[in-house]
Amino acid sequence: MSTFPTEVPALRTAVDDQARHVRSLKEAKTAKEALQPEILRLQQLKTALEAAIAAEAANAPKNVLADQRRSLEDLLKRRFVVGQAFEIYGGVAGLFDYGPPGAAMKDALISLWRQHFILEEGLLEIECTCLTPDPVLRASGHVERFTDFMVRDTVTHECYRADKLLAEHVTARALPNETNPTRKARLEQLVHDVDTYSQTELGAALKEAGVVSDAGNQVSEPFPFNLMFATQIGPSGLIPGFLRPETAQGIFVNFRRLLDYAGGKLPFGAATIGQAFRNEIAPRSGLLRVREFTLAEIEFFVHPSREGRHHSKFGSIRDLKVPLLTKKAQETEGDDTVIMAIGDAISQGIIDNETLGYFIGRTALFLKAAGLADSRTHGPTPQDSAFRFRQHRSTEMAHYANDCWDAEIWTSYGWVECVGIADRSCFDLGRHSEKSGSELVAYERFDEPKDIEVTVFKFDRQGLGMALKKLAKPAIEFLEATSDDARKAYAAELESKGFITIRVKPEADKKKKKDDPESAEEPQEVDVQVPKQYVTIATETKRIHGQTFTPSVIEPSFGLGRILYSLLEHAYYVRGGEDEARAVLSLSPLIAPYKVALLPLSANDAFSAILGEIRRSLSAVGVSCKVDDSGSSVGRRYARSDEIGIPFAVTVDFQSIENRTATIRERDTCTQIRVPIAEIAKLCYDLSNGNVMWADARATYPEQQQSASDSVGRKE
Amino acid sequence: MSTFPTEVPALRTAVDDQARHVRSLKEAKTAKEALQPEILRLQQLKTALEAAIAAEAANAPKNVLADQRRSLEDLLKRRFVVGQAFEIYGGVAGLFDYGPPGAAMKDALISLWRQHFILEEGLLEIECTCLTPDPVLRASGHVERFTDFMVRDTVTHECYRADKLLAEHVTARALPNETNPTRKARLEQLVHDVDTYSQTELGAALKEAGVVSDAGNQVSEPFPFNLMFATQIGPSGLIPGFLRPETAQGIFVNFRRLLDYAGGKLPFGAATIGQAFRNEIAPRSGLLRVREFTLAEIEFFVHPSREGRHHSKFGSIRDLKVPLLTKKAQETEGDDTVIMAIGDAISQGIIDNETLGYFIGRTALFLKAAGLADSRTHGPTPQDSAFRFRQHRSTEMAHYANDCWDAEIWTSYGWVECVGIADRSCFDLGRHSEKSGSELVAYERFDEPKDIEVTVFKFDRQGLGMALKKLAKPAIEFLEATSDDARKAYAAELESKGFITIRVKPEADKKKKKDDPESAEEPQEVDVQVPKQYVTIATETKRIHGQTFTPSVIEPSFGLGRILYSLLEHAYYVRGGEDEARAVLSLSPLIAPYKVALLPLSANDAFSAILGEIRRSLSAVGVSCKVDDSGSSVGRRYARSDEIGIPFAVTVDFQSIENRTATIRERDTCTQIRVPIAEIAKLCYDLSNGNVMWADARATYPEQQQSASDSVGRKE
Repeated sequence: MSTFPTEVPALRTAVDDQARHVRSLKEAKTAKEALQPEILRLQQLKTALEAAIAAEAANAPKNVLADQRRSLEDLLKRRFVVGQAFEIYGGVAGLFDYGPPGAAMKDALISLWRQHFILEEGLLEIECTCLTPDPVLRASGHVERFTDFMVRDTVTHECYRADKLLAEHVTARALPNETNPTRKARLEQLVHDVDTYSQTELGAALKEAGVVSDAGNQVSEPFPFNLMFATQIGPSGLIPGFLRPETAQGIFVNFRRLLDYAGGKLPFGAATIGQAFRNEIAPRSGLLRVREFTLAEIEFFVHPSREGRHHSKFGSIRDLKVPLLTKKAQETEGDDTVIMAIGDAISQGIIDNETLGYFIGRTALFLKAAGLADSRTHGPTPQDSAFRFRQHRSTEMAHYANDCWDAEIWTSYGWVECVGIADRSCFDLGRHSEKSGSELVAYERFDEPKDIEVTVFKFDRQGLGMALKKLAKPAIEFLEATSDDARKAYAAELESKGFITIRVKPEADKKKKKDDPESAEEPQEVDVQVPKQYVTIATETKRIHGQTFTPSVIEPSFGLGRILYSLLEHAYYVRGGEDEARAVLSLSPLIAPYKVALLPLSANDAFSAILGEIRRSLSAVGVSCKVDDSGSSVGRRYARSDEIGIPFAVTVDFQSIENRTATIRERDTCTQIRVPIAEIAKLCYDLSNGNVMWADARATYPEQQQSASDSVGRKE
Repeated sequence: MSTFPTEVPALRTAVDDQARHVRSLKEAKTAKEALQPEILRLQQLKTALEAAIAAEAANAPKNVLADQRRSLEDLLKRRFVVGQAFEIYGGVAGLFDYGPPGAAMKDALISLWRQHFILEEGLLEIECTCLTPDPVLRASGHVERFTDFMVRDTVTHECYRADKLLAEHVTARALPNETNPTRKARLEQLVHDVDTYSQTELGAALKEAGVVSDAGNQVSEPFPFNLMFATQIGPSGLIPGFLRPETAQGIFVNFRRLLDYAGGKLPFGAATIGQAFRNEIAPRSGLLRVREFTLAEIEFFVHPSREGRHHSKFGSIRDLKVPLLTKKAQETEGDDTVIMAIGDAISQGIIDNETLGYFIGRTALFLKAAGLADSRTHGPTPQDSAFRFRQHRSTEMAHYANDCWDAEIWTSYGWVECVGIADRSCFDLGRHSEKSGSELVAYERFDEPKDIEVTVFKFDRQGLGMALKKLAKPAIEFLEATSDDARKAYAAELESKGFITIRVKPEADKKKKKDDPESAEEPQEVDVQVPKQYVTIATETKRIHGQTFTPSVIEPSFGLGRILYSLLEHAYYVRGGEDEARAVLSLSPLIAPYKVALLPLSANDAFSAILGEIRRSLSAVGVSCKVDDSGSSVGRRYARSDEIGIPFAVTVDFQSIENRTATIRERDTCTQIRVPIAEIAKLCYDLSNGNVMWADARATYPEQQQSASDSVGRKE
């Protein structure tokens, strides 16, 4: 199923943009006749926004997560998990800042990723620059092809992403008013196929659907818009560059250094975590489509043969069952996601090779470790997994790619691509070799040396020099650079004609050029005949011990911001009645911003020494905690800590002074136990790392009566 | 003392830039007459570079670190600690990538910083975007003032940073040939003062010193060049933006959210770690002056009064002695750095306040924890510290700043600014309040409510409405917005004249405007007389419970890349004879890329099970290790691990199989002990974290005979 963003965010962006536009026109003292239509347009946009908000409220989406989205977004904003960047200046669409809890969650997600992939897979982590000069992104194809199709409102010149406008127009305007079933089916088809359209097809589809802009105006033909942020490096303006749209190129351009670091041996993997930038045309979908984001990318280099794609640790995930939506299923009516062991998917030819399958399996384990359930509690089909692996259809995949799978997570926006896992063959290294002139290859030593037949030239250099003068050296260089096949053809020509004809440039007159560079002309190519008497062609046997080759690469690429947002949606729930509704983020302790909330029962000096003691003991075992000694009631402070997903709360009370114990409360069950202070740090460490389950802790330590204000739990 | 970079790096950059320029001209099929001078210029630059390299070699600098710089740089490149970015495309000056050991060191430095500042000081960490819209950097003053003075070669149009060109020209060309002592002293003065020059002064100094370009041509007058990378956000080109030149603005624009997160109470601190970007005119000095770098910045918000700058933890660093180079010492001949307790420096009025002093002390402790010695082993005065705190001179400091100190580290380039610690008063929040229209203030509740006298208007609104019609409402609004002083003056006017005269705009005719926006004209201001009969002015007593104020901020700002490079210089040494010279990075275990190198004595299957066992035990206690099971000799592998600074090497040998022990070798002493396998992980953890000293470990465990190939140690 596709994602259908509502038009409200788009209109909100449009209103903001137009307001900014009007302000800038005013600042520039624009003449009234030019200003008035822009103000009118702003008023129209505002009216359209209000109507869209009302329509959205009346026609609430069926996605359970979507029902909660607004209150989750409110929570994220209120507790500064994340906030729109530069909001005091009106904000910029697609840019967000992470506040203290959000930054801590993201840091925890990065730590988990580093542990799960870099350390456990022994990858080489590097850090590369965001600034990237033009030739690198030209070689990668981004300058030419990293584009979205854009249309402009022919009256207001507002910009739209063409595919999104088509999908929105059809979904929100055309389909609801369409009664003809044939036409209805056709419109649905247009939306379904929108991702696969070429520029021409998209133009035709826009016309067929009668798409107009939000303001109701005609839109232009779609045209490509490059999504990279351009800049100039250096003061002279001679080095055009971009902000990297992905982090992977940094690994490719460092391939030789990395191969050397890996001891020259394949397979090996490199990884990099960092910011990437895409100048989205009209960012919306909240945190899912942003202009600056964090990627964690792996390039795993293998021998290009099928055997080279075996993976030494494949056995560890062979029997792991994962939800797969194959390209065949997407092309066949009624077929859907299947749960299948990775080993079976490979033996049935569904996943191309072991290395690709291995990273699909490792990705599934990572998403589970981060807190995504195998079976979903929200969403259309509760028994399904919260994530699936969708194979790229043939039309989606680049010509050089062998096989690609996206890990998609179910969200309020539908299925969202969060990880891409692609077998890109030797495309990237090949392109950079070609464009940079540096050979990005590995060397393969044969088990046994091989004897091969080679065709060689033997020259009478002196005689040739006398005969051909300044053409002799270029002629020899030309012939020595030829391929074996070409040499065989020359041998035949020499046999039949008595000479070979080639085309070379004469040597430049070095002395003359140096003395008077102005007059030195670049020499022109001329035909040369090399006579039989100065050259013989023979076949020789040569023993070779190995050969160079361009490695293939498997690329798992993780959008960490999207994964984090999806985790937040799945973690969010509300408990209690209408009067007391309390939001909870049921995050895995691995992703929680702090593992422990540390509270004194009240502002009493007697508590602070014990509080300090527990705090130091937690810190010593590396368990992060957040002290809340504000004046609010304990129940209120528990609620505040639940809201940002802190899994455990330790409370120091009067009994702590009497018998050196404190209570530990678990976030989701709201149950409490009483634990000796000396054992708290170790227990919190074990609970946070999954070494001890809460149920076991409850069986070990006495239960603590919970207060009335904190009695509503979801899970027991 | 100032830093005097040699001209070689500048020439290297110039050659690279010119070669790129020529290539681009060729690609653009530029006409020969335009191309030839550029080629000639390239040849001249190459000749100049060769000459400069020869001159540099003949005239080696006296800085001990500088003597070793080239071999350190070779090591950093060879082991891919760090490498020029995009080298296969010719590289881009000022951009570097961190390879696996470099990225791990940098990550370790960030972890240490986070532990030392964010966790121990309880700072609020946030993460903000690199992309920043124009108005934010206009408010901060960067658009207007974040500039360097640039000059251009009047013939070749090559760009130079004016101050650097002046210093280099005088040092490398003018001074060595100057015999007149007066003139010599004057030239030295010019270089000494170069940082303080205005645009005009710099132009005069360039003329006075007779500065020409590297090619020997006249240079232009200096002109300001903005160092920010500009880009456009969004497809319509309506949002100009920049890559942030520092990370601090992200904290200021989020001030209200952060204050709310901190419970509305001062003082509190926020921190952010991330990439920043500066389009340096001619980057050189290797890793010290780069175009993309990582900053770690703190903004610590305090009450603006002097009392508000007390710091609750000041006692912990009051007696800490730090090396201070005061502004007075810099302005007084013969005065130099003094070692002084921070408490004394404050009571003597040298450091402005406790919060500033506290962060100077914490920074000193951080630099020591990272591995910088209190007393230097290299450099001009061996007894001095490897770092010092230099106070900004009055000419350096912005008008709003109270007091600023730079932590400078001694390197092969001289003293290098690595940390800035500034009391910026309420400048930043004030500017953003003014420019954004959002009040960035805190609220202070008085201990006791205060009763204050206020002057109030009382209006007969109905009467005034009848009398003044459309002017009544604007008149009331105008008067209610006046200050207490103005009201007193109006009271006097009313008393003496019987009316007040003010100037207001009549209310617009709303209905008319709405119906026909085209025709609505903006109303003009008119004079209005408000008669005594409709208004009385009285003095009332009002009880207020608190007031709002703009907080001041102390800003410690860390250049992590510069600190890391300085640590590498101080850690680097070579041991052994000429035949066997071996480089070592004597890094603190906290900064080392891996804590343990894990080696099997040879490629023997019997070793691999034990190797795996030790590896897992290290991983379980969080000690990072790097396995080296390459075929090289153990001595060679020790040397390879020393080169990237791994402090301990654990070797599995035949005795390991016999009696379940392995050896641990320490990097700097090259001594070895034999330890039971079960105790290795705990011991390595304690050694890496400084809980156990190597000497104590040697006293506890039996010494292991070391091999002949590994017998040269520096320290015992």
